[in-house]
Amino acid sequence: MSPPDALPSWNEGNTKRSIVEFVRRVTAHSGADFVAPSQRIAVFDNDGCLWAEQPMYFQLAFAIDRVKALAPQHPDWKTKEPFASLLKGDLNGSLAGGEHAAAEIVAASHAGMTTDEFQRTVREWTRRAHHPKLKRRYVELVYQPMLELLRYLRANGFKTFIVTGGGVEFVRTWAEEVYGIPPEQVVGSVGKQQFELRRTGPVLVRLPAVDFVDDKAGKPAGIQRFIGRRPLAAFGNSDGDLEMLQWTAAGEGARLMLLVHYTDARREWAYDRDSQVGKLDKALDEAHAKGWAVASMKDDWNTIFANPPRA
Amino acid sequence: MSPPDALPSWNEGNTKRSIVEFVRRVTAHSGADFVAPSQRIAVFDNDGCLWAEQPMYFQLAFAIDRVKALAPQHPDWKTKEPFASLLKGDLNGSLAGGEHAAAEIVAASHAGMTTDEFQRTVREWTRRAHHPKLKRRYVELVYQPMLELLRYLRANGFKTFIVTGGGVEFVRTWAEEVYGIPPEQVVGSVGKQQFELRRTGPVLVRLPAVDFVDDKAGKPAGIQRFIGRRPLAAFGNSDGDLEMLQWTAAGEGARLMLLVHYTDARREWAYDRDSQVGKLDKALDEAHAKGWAVASMKDDWNTIFANPPRA
Repeated sequence: MSPPDALPSWNEGNTKRSIVEFVRRVTAHSGADFVAPSQRIAVFDNDGCLWAEQPMYFQLAFAIDRVKALAPQHPDWKTKEPFASLLKGDLNGSLAGGEHAAAEIVAASHAGMTTDEFQRTVREWTRRAHHPKLKRRYVELVYQPMLELLRYLRANGFKTFIVTGGGVEFVRTWAEEVYGIPPEQVVGSVGKQQFELRRTGPVLVRLPAVDFVDDKAGKPAGIQRFIGRRPLAAFGNSDGDLEMLQWTAAGEGARLMLLVHYTDARREWAYDRDSQVGKLDKALDEAHAKGWAVASMKDDWNTIFANPPRA
Repeated sequence: MSPPDALPSWNEGNTKRSIVEFVRRVTAHSGADFVAPSQRIAVFDNDGCLWAEQPMYFQLAFAIDRVKALAPQHPDWKTKEPFASLLKGDLNGSLAGGEHAAAEIVAASHAGMTTDEFQRTVREWTRRAHHPKLKRRYVELVYQPMLELLRYLRANGFKTFIVTGGGVEFVRTWAEEVYGIPPEQVVGSVGKQQFELRRTGPVLVRLPAVDFVDDKAGKPAGIQRFIGRRPLAAFGNSDGDLEMLQWTAAGEGARLMLLVHYTDARREWAYDRDSQVGKLDKALDEAHAKGWAVASMKDDWNTIFANPPRA
């Protein structure tokens, strides 16, 4: 069905075998586990699963860059937290105010503009912004093995979705170009928006209020809300993905649940149970207990990052 | 490109011509209005646009039937409004309590069960329930000209979505069989849900609270939230669709906005500005002012209802 080298960045071994075996089972017309193409739904977490997430979620890097860019229009930020610390380069100090501080940064950087303006802003940022350590554009820090997996599943009739805790409009802006996933197949956290009829025409204005958080137990709810059917396959890397994998596993017939495990301090990062970002603890235990696939970055991937997309 | 008889239930005339001309413009590779297939998004209201909506929205008929079916388990409903009047067949009396009464009926009929149980309930209802006047199953009261339009647009590379004020999970249950529109292409009003890990596995429980109303200004917001890009074409029939058509019209290049106008008292119904259900007033004025297409049921459609779907 599929060429034998559809996943060349994956080393031969149990993980790759469990992927290929799952796809063979649900696509074999004569088999007991055959699933019609219209039902072949695969969901992928984004941060830490399709692209990197260290030393901080890239959307937070975007928010910080926005605050810096907007600072000249907000002279009061020089003395007002959480902006003052942030503008001095002291992220920890800025975020010391907890959720309220983070919410202020997100509101200042993500709200008060139309959806069209927000998309333009994100698009410009992805073209310019570089990762501080890896010195590449953020959208180049996507995982080659996962790109192959997306393509492999699509070649086998799957519809691929992103189910992210990140902002849905942030990810949608570049997901089609980078992953081949169209906007309508991105599920994520959602902010409130307001429809306004301006003299120039109707607009949707982004409000500084979160409407739906697509993380942890929010992921099955987000899947049900946006997609409306249970996935056959789910891919994650942190405890925030646990409920999504449980929800996927609870369906009948063949299912594939996979966690990306950060075990590669040399080429990327090594972290799991004690990490602030992308903490993987309970989900790792459950994967071991339930026999879900765990992709060890060090052992299962012979390539980490994809080639830069054509500019 | 398309066979000349792709819309046989539409009479020749301005309305049909505006549809065919629009499709020709956006699909002609050499033309200035060409749009890549991935961007060809068409959105359809459901109630009164794809299926009938008189004498009451069919989802309300479902809610009433559910209250009747559940009554034996709720003996207190015999003396408690809004249920008491409803069970005596007095719908107006039941709804005299206004929004609060309607909310109680919806909560009693739509909440307190898992998403799987709700889908089963809706599926059984669509198999059994019949329209009181037209004596056919509700899912048979879909419009043949609109089914042809859905197929015609899909044959020309469009992705067709429903954008309904009705409950997204209610419509998703049967939209694929009836319209060929998969669950993930249905946008609608959303209730709150709660993820629970039960001994038998994870479930999503429907809570008696509305989370998002996909009507009027909620329709552009719903389109942005679920689909993430502006439609090229939008189809509605009431003032609840006005903002969706405005939002669609505000995009660049060729666009198609169309209202179904109930002008056929003999074969279906005739109503517009004074109707409680499907009121069409401001949107009709704006359609005339802006030159949007208006499909007069009486003049533009030579067939109304589709043949019953294969059972």
